[in-house]
Amino acid sequence: MSTPPDAATLTPDRARALFRGGLRAPTAGWCAGWTQANLIAVPREDAYDVLLFAQRNPKACPVLDVTEPGGTSASLFRGDLRTDLPGYVVYEDGVPVAEVTDATGHWRDDLVAFLIGCSFTFENALAEAGVPVRHIEQGRNVPMYRTSRPCRGAGALGGRLVVSMRPVPAGRVADAVRVTARYPAVHGAPVHVGDPAALGIADLDAPDFGDAVEVRPGEVPVFWACGVTPQAAVMASRPKFAIGHAPGHMAITDARDGDYLIP
Amino acid sequence: MSTPPDAATLTPDRARALFRGGLRAPTAGWCAGWTQANLIAVPREDAYDVLLFAQRNPKACPVLDVTEPGGTSASLFRGDLRTDLPGYVVYEDGVPVAEVTDATGHWRDDLVAFLIGCSFTFENALAEAGVPVRHIEQGRNVPMYRTSRPCRGAGALGGRLVVSMRPVPAGRVADAVRVTARYPAVHGAPVHVGDPAALGIADLDAPDFGDAVEVRPGEVPVFWACGVTPQAAVMASRPKFAIGHAPGHMAITDARDGDYLIP
Repeated sequence: MSTPPDAATLTPDRARALFRGGLRAPTAGWCAGWTQANLIAVPREDAYDVLLFAQRNPKACPVLDVTEPGGTSASLFRGDLRTDLPGYVVYEDGVPVAEVTDATGHWRDDLVAFLIGCSFTFENALAEAGVPVRHIEQGRNVPMYRTSRPCRGAGALGGRLVVSMRPVPAGRVADAVRVTARYPAVHGAPVHVGDPAALGIADLDAPDFGDAVEVRPGEVPVFWACGVTPQAAVMASRPKFAIGHAPGHMAITDARDGDYLIP
Repeated sequence: MSTPPDAATLTPDRARALFRGGLRAPTAGWCAGWTQANLIAVPREDAYDVLLFAQRNPKACPVLDVTEPGGTSASLFRGDLRTDLPGYVVYEDGVPVAEVTDATGHWRDDLVAFLIGCSFTFENALAEAGVPVRHIEQGRNVPMYRTSRPCRGAGALGGRLVVSMRPVPAGRVADAVRVTARYPAVHGAPVHVGDPAALGIADLDAPDFGDAVEVRPGEVPVFWACGVTPQAAVMASRPKFAIGHAPGHMAITDARDGDYLIP
């Protein structure tokens, strides 16, 4: 199976059915107008650290919804969190031990799942404002990078900020800032514009997650905080168990992008 | 001791020293430009429920800072949380068992303290926009009411929304909305304008917390979500132990009001 040509116009329900059926694909550009979310699920005993980590790093970890322990759906996500994402990473002691398209066999009764805002949510608004979204144009996953910027720790959880990058023509950077600032619950305005080295990123062509994209002459790399940050914290802090989405392979929720737009 | 005539121009440090010395006074109008906060402190084992309750009721419970277990200060509050507020309420099994100006004897090593945004933060901006702030004019505490509106529960914690009320001339209601909407981290725009009965409030002259204020002809009661909501949830849900601020007697922080203003 591959990405259907009508991915942009699917309903969340239909997209989730495809993923439940085994399709693995990055979700940028899917289900236009519907909010996408990062997933991090941890045992109940570690849930406070994750929630506090999110509160202390709100730009990277805007919490949209939290399940009850053992819950497999959420008020914003009426599908099954174990099967309806296109990809999962299972962590033991902070080490990725499995990448799966169905996490049912790994799910546990004490897991609390956090849905965290995703910058894909504002990409439709960027495109409408005439700002190019290169990874969608190129049919790739968005490039994501570990930075050298430390997050505020919470209990046993700490790590460094992860960012996503979109190349923007110099004359449109202000528009990109203005448009995305109106979506604070899905990472909001960029955390950095320009020189990747200032964030500790050595090579834009070698992202830590996702795919490299073309940066054209006259374009500036623009960096937004990324909801993969909690997974980077899991890898750095090595809690016993966690399940995350495969970066770029998001939970497509039943919320509308407009729900996160401030007036 | 009574409220000093220069309360509005004191630094947070100086105000906290007065409270540490035993002064008990509502803090509306104190330390203009410095952010005030609600306090709720619970044992570590109940902290996840409080943090999740806040996440699920963000309008009433915008979390500004969280201490480490046993901590007595926070990055936003460089004083001593046990002594530097003008009043505290101690709860056992959800029942207020003591009202004190020094909580040192009640504080516990496992307490996690949450600082939650307070609508006093936008009162300076209201006044500057020409919207009267009646309880400051009248030298009273702000009136607060339990509503009939249920909060979203979290674990063992649930209850009803508490609101603060300010009477606003009909022609200035739009300004009051516009100004306060720009402060989402300190309750933001009103939750209700007009008829108190629609919120289940029977009598504006009998607030559940604070003091009644005069509502003049041509004025509309305007209601904002209130950071006393977690304390109402404590009273409704009866956890073993909690300490809150005395309503209207806030933690004066080292953050500036402008830090919570969106552009």
